[in-house]
Amino acid sequence: MRIKHHLPVALLSATAATFSINVQAEEPIQPIQPVKEINLALAELGKKLYFDPRLSKSGFISCNSCHNLSMGGTDNLKTSIGDKWQQGPINSPTVLNSSLNVAQFWDGRAADLKEQAGGPIANPGEMASSHTLAVDVIASIPGYVREFTLVFGGEEVSIDRITDAIAEFEKTLVTPNSRFDQWLLGDANAISQYEQEGYELFKSSGCVACHNGEAVGGNSFQKMGLVEPYQTNNEVEGRAAVTGKDADRFTFKVPTLRNVEMTYPYFHDGEAETLTEATDIMGRLQLGRKFSDDENAKIVAFLKTLTGDQPQFLMPILPPSVDATPRPQPFD
Amino acid sequence: MRIKHHLPVALLSATAATFSINVQAEEPIQPIQPVKEINLALAELGKKLYFDPRLSKSGFISCNSCHNLSMGGTDNLKTSIGDKWQQGPINSPTVLNSSLNVAQFWDGRAADLKEQAGGPIANPGEMASSHTLAVDVIASIPGYVREFTLVFGGEEVSIDRITDAIAEFEKTLVTPNSRFDQWLLGDANAISQYEQEGYELFKSSGCVACHNGEAVGGNSFQKMGLVEPYQTNNEVEGRAAVTGKDADRFTFKVPTLRNVEMTYPYFHDGEAETLTEATDIMGRLQLGRKFSDDENAKIVAFLKTLTGDQPQFLMPILPPSVDATPRPQPFD
Ligand code: HEC
Ligand code: HEC
Ligand code: HEC
Ligand code: HEC
Ligand SMILES: [Ca+2]
Ligand SMILES: [Ca+2]
Repeated sequence: MRIKHHLPVALLSATAATFSINVQAEEPIQPIQPVKEINLALAELGKKLYFDPRLSKSGFISCNSCHNLSMGGTDNLKTSIGDKWQQGPINSPTVLNSSLNVAQFWDGRAADLKEQAGGPIANPGEMASSHTLAVDVIASIPGYVREFTLVFGGEEVSIDRITDAIAEFEKTLVTPNSRFDQWLLGDANAISQYEQEGYELFKSSGCVACHNGEAVGGNSFQKMGLVEPYQTNNEVEGRAAVTGKDADRFTFKVPTLRNVEMTYPYFHDGEAETLTEATDIMGRLQLGRKFSDDENAKIVAFLKTLTGDQPQFLMPILPPSVDATPRPQPFD
Repeated sequence: MRIKHHLPVALLSATAATFSINVQAEEPIQPIQPVKEINLALAELGKKLYFDPRLSKSGFISCNSCHNLSMGGTDNLKTSIGDKWQQGPINSPTVLNSSLNVAQFWDGRAADLKEQAGGPIANPGEMASSHTLAVDVIASIPGYVREFTLVFGGEEVSIDRITDAIAEFEKTLVTPNSRFDQWLLGDANAISQYEQEGYELFKSSGCVACHNGEAVGGNSFQKMGLVEPYQTNNEVEGRAAVTGKDADRFTFKVPTLRNVEMTYPYFHDGEAETLTEATDIMGRLQLGRKFSDDENAKIVAFLKTLTGDQPQFLMPILPPSVDATPRPQPFD
């Protein structure tokens, strides 16, 4: 099998699940760990900024517009809607568990969440503001300035502090306690026999080679269309845009499969509408294997056990603008 | 003074505030009453629907897009952004305390919240869906069907039930406990001497004739530009669109002044950016009175005491679509 050369063989040989409480050590997927070492005041400020459409030129688009925390941290659109209803180039990945990613964006061009968060604010196709304008807006709002002073010990508002706070909030967005994790942690009844058979197939057929670890993905870059090329009209070229290497064309960060039931549609172009379709394509294109309907359904059933506890928090109340706050420019 | 003929004289003669605990009985403004008789499960379902962009054609716009509960129940834009970034005709009024309104919309064309809620879903300039499509979407989602069954005792999803639920949620969106209400309820120190002077001016100059009651407005239709005509490029004609009477041209539902600090910009066309400007215009156009800077500032200070406790609730988690759910159509 040609594919094996590309895959971490150790993972493929992971032994079948047992029901002992030590099972997790032997499994290629680990339970999501609870968040630790969160600066709560910083995260609380970051939550406000994450929900604040005043970081966009129009005053209409916030991070939550495209990474809606009511909907699995995505917009559930093929490609996103940006400033002035511009059609985005790529599917919006979930922010849930994004702190576990090896890097941010489909092509990994941002090292971490803090570096990432500066991007969309100034991206003309997304929030269409600028760092200067965003800072001016936030710095004009007394309610924010007080909170910056409390959190940072000084009233200066900078893009550095804004992205720091957003990243800290995003670190809280993990989804532990999925039924699959309960099973990993020893509750043999947390998933059904059928779902467990799906997991066995997910392991034995080789999916875990790329989708593994705490986030069931997110920790490596892999070619889309390894065995058979992927057909798409989408023009994005993947990791090659970052490395400049031709070999990295059509290589993408492997998406996390945590909460994948909620993050439809699938793939970087959003062209797969259902998990059934995505699983079928993955089998054929990445593994050279055509699953039967029954096998496919089992894998999909397993994937749905990866939906964890969604972040539960109070909707933030944003401090109001004042007379001096620069006004949104939605129509010019 | 010509204006007096148009005003409920009894209100204008309200006596000056005293500090007794019985003060509220004598005042033209009453404290917001806590919500009673809420069907919690119905409101919880309504909260989900209120936040669900799948009620729109694009899958991108929810009630909360234009009535953002993080921002005083408005979008803080002059006029709203609708489907495909269409520029709306009129400023989005707050949904906070809207259950206290005599009728809904600036021109009062909907009798109540339930009747109102059907409007934006099918309005091509707002959510651009249809009642049939909205019902099909919701009815396809098992998580919703279960909740409809629980709440209504039957799994049928209809626009009637959808708007019932949204209206019940909106009934919870009252904002009691403003500093002004604390003062009305007997805490003499809840507002400053300066703010109290603003309130005295608000009463003595005649604002309370139109802005009175629990919501400090919302309970009558009045001409905009009673003494002096209002100049605007906005083409909306007001209540005449409902009654067909020429005399009702430029008559609007008097907006609530509760949380008015958060509901900028002001007036049906959103042309007044600040409370200072709105107060100046109201004085001149409705009362034929030009306030000094000091008087204006006092009234504005009083208006800011009307910001109440904002609704605090957990961000809803929406049940995911399934394979059969009609997909959003953002770009066609
Ligand atoms: C207009 C839509 C839109 C807005 C607004 C937006 N994003 Fe994104 N976001 C995207 C898209 C699309 C991508 C994928 C881009 C790519 O990979 O090239 C993305 C990628 C990300 C990622 C990387 C996730 C991963 O797994 O690689 C994070 C984290 C993120 N966004 C957070 C934010 C934050 C924080 C904000 C606000 C400051 C924000 N986004 C605003 C659409 C949006
Ligand atoms: C060789 C690496 C590799 C293997 C093996 C692999 N995947 Fe993937 N998977 C990827 C990459 C890369 C993507 C992103 C592709 C894209 O978006 O263009 C992806 C995307 C997905 C998605 C869509 C996730 C999303 O949010 O868009 C699903 C579902 C998925 N894989 C399931 C599977 C299943 C099931 C298997 C086994 C049958 C499998 N994968 C095998 C690398 C792999
Ligand atoms: C695209 C923006 C937009 C969307 C989406 C939207 N609204 Fe509105 N809403 C408005 C505007 C603008 C008005 C004023 C229209 C008028 O008076 O003619 C309004 C009026 C209202 C009013 C009347 C308030 C008052 O004081 O008269 C209520 C209540 C309301 N909307 C609730 C909702 C609900 C519930 C939804 C979702 C089902 C919703 N809105 C969706 C923009 C929007
Ligand atoms: C004769 C009735 C009347 C009187 C008297 C009156 N108002 Fe108004 N007020 C209205 C109407 C009607 C509107 C809505 C006008 C529009 O949007 O075109 C309004 C709007 C406002 C607004 C903007 C609210 C918003 O959310 O857009 C403020 C602030 C306000 N009034 C304050 C005052 C003050 C202060 C006074 C006294 C100086 C006053 N009003 C006197 C009827 C009145
Ligand atoms: Ca997706
Ligand atoms: Ca307004």
